[in-house]
Amino acid sequence: MKIANRMGLLGSETAFAVSAEASNLAETGKKIFPFHLGDINLSTPKSVIQAANRAIEEGKTGYCPAPGISELREALAKDVGNARGITYDMDNVSIQPGGKPSIGKYIASMMEKGDSVLYPNPGYPIYESQIEFYEGIAVPYGYINTPEGLKLDFDAIEKGVQKGVKHIFYNNYNNPTGASSPDEEVERLAKLVIDNDMFLISDDAYFDTLYEGEPKSIASFPGMYERTLTMYTFSKKFAMTGWRLGASIGPKEVIEQINRLNVNMESCTTHFVQYAGLAGLNAPKSETQDILDILKIRRDRLVEILNENDGIEAHLPEAGFYVFPKITELLKNTGFDDVEDFRKTVLNETGVSFCGRHHFGRPLNNENNYYIRLAFSGIDIDDLEEGMHLFKEWIKDNTK
Amino acid sequence: MKIANRMGLLGSETAFAVSAEASNLAETGKKIFPFHLGDINLSTPKSVIQAANRAIEEGKTGYCPAPGISELREALAKDVGNARGITYDMDNVSIQPGGKPSIGKYIASMMEKGDSVLYPNPGYPIYESQIEFYEGIAVPYGYINTPEGLKLDFDAIEKGVQKGVKHIFYNNYNNPTGASSPDEEVERLAKLVIDNDMFLISDDAYFDTLYEGEPKSIASFPGMYERTLTMYTFSKKFAMTGWRLGASIGPKEVIEQINRLNVNMESCTTHFVQYAGLAGLNAPKSETQDILDILKIRRDRLVEILNENDGIEAHLPEAGFYVFPKITELLKNTGFDDVEDFRKTVLNETGVSFCGRHHFGRPLNNENNYYIRLAFSGIDIDDLEEGMHLFKEWIKDNTK
Repeated sequence: MKIANRMGLLGSETAFAVSAEASNLAETGKKIFPFHLGDINLSTPKSVIQAANRAIEEGKTGYCPAPGISELREALAKDVGNARGITYDMDNVSIQPGGKPSIGKYIASMMEKGDSVLYPNPGYPIYESQIEFYEGIAVPYGYINTPEGLKLDFDAIEKGVQKGVKHIFYNNYNNPTGASSPDEEVERLAKLVIDNDMFLISDDAYFDTLYEGEPKSIASFPGMYERTLTMYTFSKKFAMTGWRLGASIGPKEVIEQINRLNVNMESCTTHFVQYAGLAGLNAPKSETQDILDILKIRRDRLVEILNENDGIEAHLPEAGFYVFPKITELLKNTGFDDVEDFRKTVLNETGVSFCGRHHFGRPLNNENNYYIRLAFSGIDIDDLEEGMHLFKEWIKDNTK
Repeated sequence: MKIANRMGLLGSETAFAVSAEASNLAETGKKIFPFHLGDINLSTPKSVIQAANRAIEEGKTGYCPAPGISELREALAKDVGNARGITYDMDNVSIQPGGKPSIGKYIASMMEKGDSVLYPNPGYPIYESQIEFYEGIAVPYGYINTPEGLKLDFDAIEKGVQKGVKHIFYNNYNNPTGASSPDEEVERLAKLVIDNDMFLISDDAYFDTLYEGEPKSIASFPGMYERTLTMYTFSKKFAMTGWRLGASIGPKEVIEQINRLNVNMESCTTHFVQYAGLAGLNAPKSETQDILDILKIRRDRLVEILNENDGIEAHLPEAGFYVFPKITELLKNTGFDDVEDFRKTVLNETGVSFCGRHHFGRPLNNENNYYIRLAFSGIDIDDLEEGMHLFKEWIKDNTK
């Protein structure tokens, strides 16, 4: 049986392989400290669960319209619009089984074969995978390490724009780097998009996980409303990763095409889960604030401990679940020249499991630093401290 | 904003448009008799609902592996294997958000651009849509009306095979025609597939809705195990259409590719819904038998009433939710020359809503009969009788 050639173009989310590796190790009796996956080990808010149970009870178990139930589309249009100071209505919203489906559906709908598409790298690896699967040219842009944290590499972006790139993925409150853009960065990016008649896909997965202040979306900047598709997910804010609920939100012409793909790909998103999401949007703020409060304590402690180690440089992320420390010196000190070797050794010897920069897109030519990614969303504070203690001891023992 | 050319290749499930039409009419106060959609107006079995509630309570709300939870993959391998007299293990099973995703995922994985693919027409319209979306050549085969019901048109199939077709969709217990194949038809088809080194996608959506006797799958026939991908769904047997749960089941090489698409497209199927499906597989047979018993009463009554009308010829389907009467004479008697005109007129004048043959693939050149499809899964027996009474009156009033 011959596999179709297009499957050779398809990438993956290799962080899942790290999960499998960690699980296998756990089965041998080793205690694992799971810093590798952006899953959440906190409960979904009660009001969301109750709404799901009620919706099942009320028979919301048959098909619903492919773009989603009207109530949720309307509520999301209002909620997402309000949080960004812009106006959407339900025709701007297509409900999805998660945040991820928006990536492939946008690309299939709007990217012509051979189009060049800018995407963050390091970044969520499915951008790269889907651009190439649909025969586009994936043009990476990275981040520059500064004392204030990682900044968008505008040289790479501008070079891409000069080559005629038509679409750009932008993931403010970035996974894996934890980078967030100050206003002037967003303004500069918006100007580039508008001046060059481009379209931007704003991956807002971590928009609602900003620990202090109000998040901002590029969709709010003048001229960007018609040029932005927002990838929305219930996964992070509401601790609903396994429920699979999200949405594509943006110009109606794009949403109409995405709705056509919904009909072809999955008919509709699980009916009663949409009522659960609706309850989340209407829930008291305290329920989601509780989640953020716990995550913030973990974040602060993790960055604090990481920076106590020689050769590790960790910035405090303003949003999201991830710390992305530079470990260039640490690798040198411990005699490694490859992050994957380092990662596997630490995992096997300490049970501390994390990802490397290479799990988030093919490394670029000009990279001369090494990074790892530690997620703090799936590990309790006690285990976080215990794991980091073991890591610290391992570093001491292995520094030459 | 320019929509990508590939979207011009994408079809749709136009039966959804009939639903929208019926809903709009309902909003004007007209009573609608919903014979148009294969949804089920019966409750999901209690044990399934309880298992979902329990799984949520137990925190099965985070991500799970992209191919599905092991428990469900193992149970399905056993259940589907046993029902077909063949042996699968969990690596033969990829859990999907519904029955439908298997169509596009198989095509993306295994169909090379330019490959020809046979598919039933009339048939589920997403076959045609996905073959063409991924740039294959969709080669239709129809059914021949005989006194014993509709039979596969082997002339069309053989013509396709001679042209070098590599893949064939086969939907025994067919939607929309209600046709089911006697053993000799399945054997003849299997021989063609094997002799010509083809691969078959067996859409088993209605396999478990056979009203009498034991269903048979082409996967059980000698030589077909390695050449069959089974599209499995929980939707029909367990009245779970809106839960979105199904599976691709077949050779490991195909399943591996489909799993890669799972990672790219939706990460995983809703976690706790998989435990609900597992409970369904383990539930007492009486729970699913109750559903079939109700449907059987509706089926018998519907066919009986339809055949009381001059110009309508309805076969009793052995499985599934659909009656597909020939209405060639009726159209002539009532002065229509187009099924769509007829359908809209009947809907507007009586509230009786059904689909036409044209909702199930582009009509073929050699067709000289007209058909409509009536689903009996979404309408109670009282409304079924009331609707059919109004239809009968309308026919009497409009026969010239």
